[in-house]
Amino acid sequence: MTDIVLAADLGGTNIRIAAVARDGSVLHIAKEATPKAVSPGQLMATSAAMVEECRHALSDGHHICGIAFASPAAAAKDCDGILRKLPNLPSLNGMNLKAELLDRFGLPVTLENDATAAAIGENWLGASKAVRDSIMVTLGTGVGGGIIINDEPFRGIDGTAGEIGHICVEPDGHPCGCGSNGCIEQYASATAIVRMASDLGLDCETAEDVYETAKGGDGRAISVFQIMGRYLGITLAGLVNTLNPEMIVLGGGVAAGIDAFIDKVNAEIESRAFHEPADRVKIVRSALDDMAGIVGVARSAFLADAN
Amino acid sequence: MTDIVLAADLGGTNIRIAAVARDGSVLHIAKEATPKAVSPGQLMATSAAMVEECRHALSDGHHICGIAFASPAAAAKDCDGILRKLPNLPSLNGMNLKAELLDRFGLPVTLENDATAAAIGENWLGASKAVRDSIMVTLGTGVGGGIIINDEPFRGIDGTAGEIGHICVEPDGHPCGCGSNGCIEQYASATAIVRMASDLGLDCETAEDVYETAKGGDGRAISVFQIMGRYLGITLAGLVNTLNPEMIVLGGGVAAGIDAFIDKVNAEIESRAFHEPADRVKIVRSALDDMAGIVGVARSAFLADAN
Repeated sequence: MTDIVLAADLGGTNIRIAAVARDGSVLHIAKEATPKAVSPGQLMATSAAMVEECRHALSDGHHICGIAFASPAAAAKDCDGILRKLPNLPSLNGMNLKAELLDRFGLPVTLENDATAAAIGENWLGASKAVRDSIMVTLGTGVGGGIIINDEPFRGIDGTAGEIGHICVEPDGHPCGCGSNGCIEQYASATAIVRMASDLGLDCETAEDVYETAKGGDGRAISVFQIMGRYLGITLAGLVNTLNPEMIVLGGGVAAGIDAFIDKVNAEIESRAFHEPADRVKIVRSALDDMAGIVGVARSAFLADAN
Repeated sequence: MTDIVLAADLGGTNIRIAAVARDGSVLHIAKEATPKAVSPGQLMATSAAMVEECRHALSDGHHICGIAFASPAAAAKDCDGILRKLPNLPSLNGMNLKAELLDRFGLPVTLENDATAAAIGENWLGASKAVRDSIMVTLGTGVGGGIIINDEPFRGIDGTAGEIGHICVEPDGHPCGCGSNGCIEQYASATAIVRMASDLGLDCETAEDVYETAKGGDGRAISVFQIMGRYLGITLAGLVNTLNPEMIVLGGGVAAGIDAFIDKVNAEIESRAFHEPADRVKIVRSALDDMAGIVGVARSAFLADAN
């Protein structure tokens, strides 16, 4: 029998559920668009259909030992299972995801914040493999963070640690869905890139469009990534001074355009952080790309299963 | 025989060396003003005189098992002993303090960053005793930081972690001695308080003067502490979101005036950090006051002696 975890990644754009084996290999993956203002009922119905798809795709000889969900909520492994603080999926705030999954599937449930899951995935099989202290920053619809200390996810006293996207970089800056102003999420997320491009008169639907426009030589699109890289660099410089990590891994969809902003990020770190930790830290792109969260939350579920 | 560590705290204003017993009790303390632009030779001569004073003050039956130095350098316990990055004591940059102390006194030498030492001291015998995850922020000539995770100082890969004073809170803000702009040190240190008061037309020699002026009802002095509290709150909100600590301990001389700024700090944390970690964190004043660093670095030396 091959042990399998059904590992889900709930994003603002898509919901994906994959059958992941103990070695991290992905045997099947199902994907659906996240409904607008998705309700808890819709999430459960969509998940059930994808779980069925995965089960059908698996040959005999597979044992499903758990279900694991990565979401952009301030959720911890040992939490009560209630989704809290989803600035980009507010319709799910307050949902008891753990209880509903347990009730629906009758399998052990593991929850993780999606960026923490991505950090675990990269540390297990990706860019920060064999790196003791690292930080994952996911640049997607929002900006998420996960911290690895001594090869373990660092969760803090309540399991909410790692909310790097809501570090303030501009005290009177753009209002954030979290209730604060000037969070790095408002300058380095895909959403922010599109907004900043629009402010400069560009009509781009997605951050990828802004990136392509910058590649085409448009000065306004180039400057969007300069602004984004500056603010991201300021935030990372603060983390470098505070945590002296060996590596910072940039993931999420926006990291695909890393060449448009990495020089600015590195320049800010060099000019703002102390020399020794600035020289030490490697800023790299995610190796597992959009599979980091799924692989990472599967890892958490297998570890929970072993205990 | 009572084991003793000679524990020093090198500050911008004073140098102090104390005879500290294994239980943290201070048997004698010597104090001298830090010479302006103090040279390595002056530091060693002053230290030698204070070490002699401590030795004379001790009765027979004491065994001095080490010398320990807390300084505002990015120095770690296991570092090469060279003082680096002292924005407020630049004349000591590059000094091999460990080698010089060993050469002069022939005793095992322990070095710590002063804020890390203060964090260790508070966690051992002070405000954060029995608190697993806490952050120390020292508000003195500069702003320092020390992080305790799982009851241990968190040092990062090179031992430079905890430089909270050089987190940027205002991207184009006041130039900092570290080479960056808008570090929290430029808004929350004693030096910054005097500067901001001067900018508002007040003629105050020290941060204590500004505090007394604020207590006397002067609107400009009050607003200095509102500005200071706002920036400090923004920085602490970022740390609350990132590390989800149980407690943040405020030390250093400026913390004596905590009533002038704590409400503003708490308001910023409440409005900017996520609710769960914001509700959790206690922001408290140092219990050991200006002895936190000395007691903490003595603790480090005793632990090193035991290993």
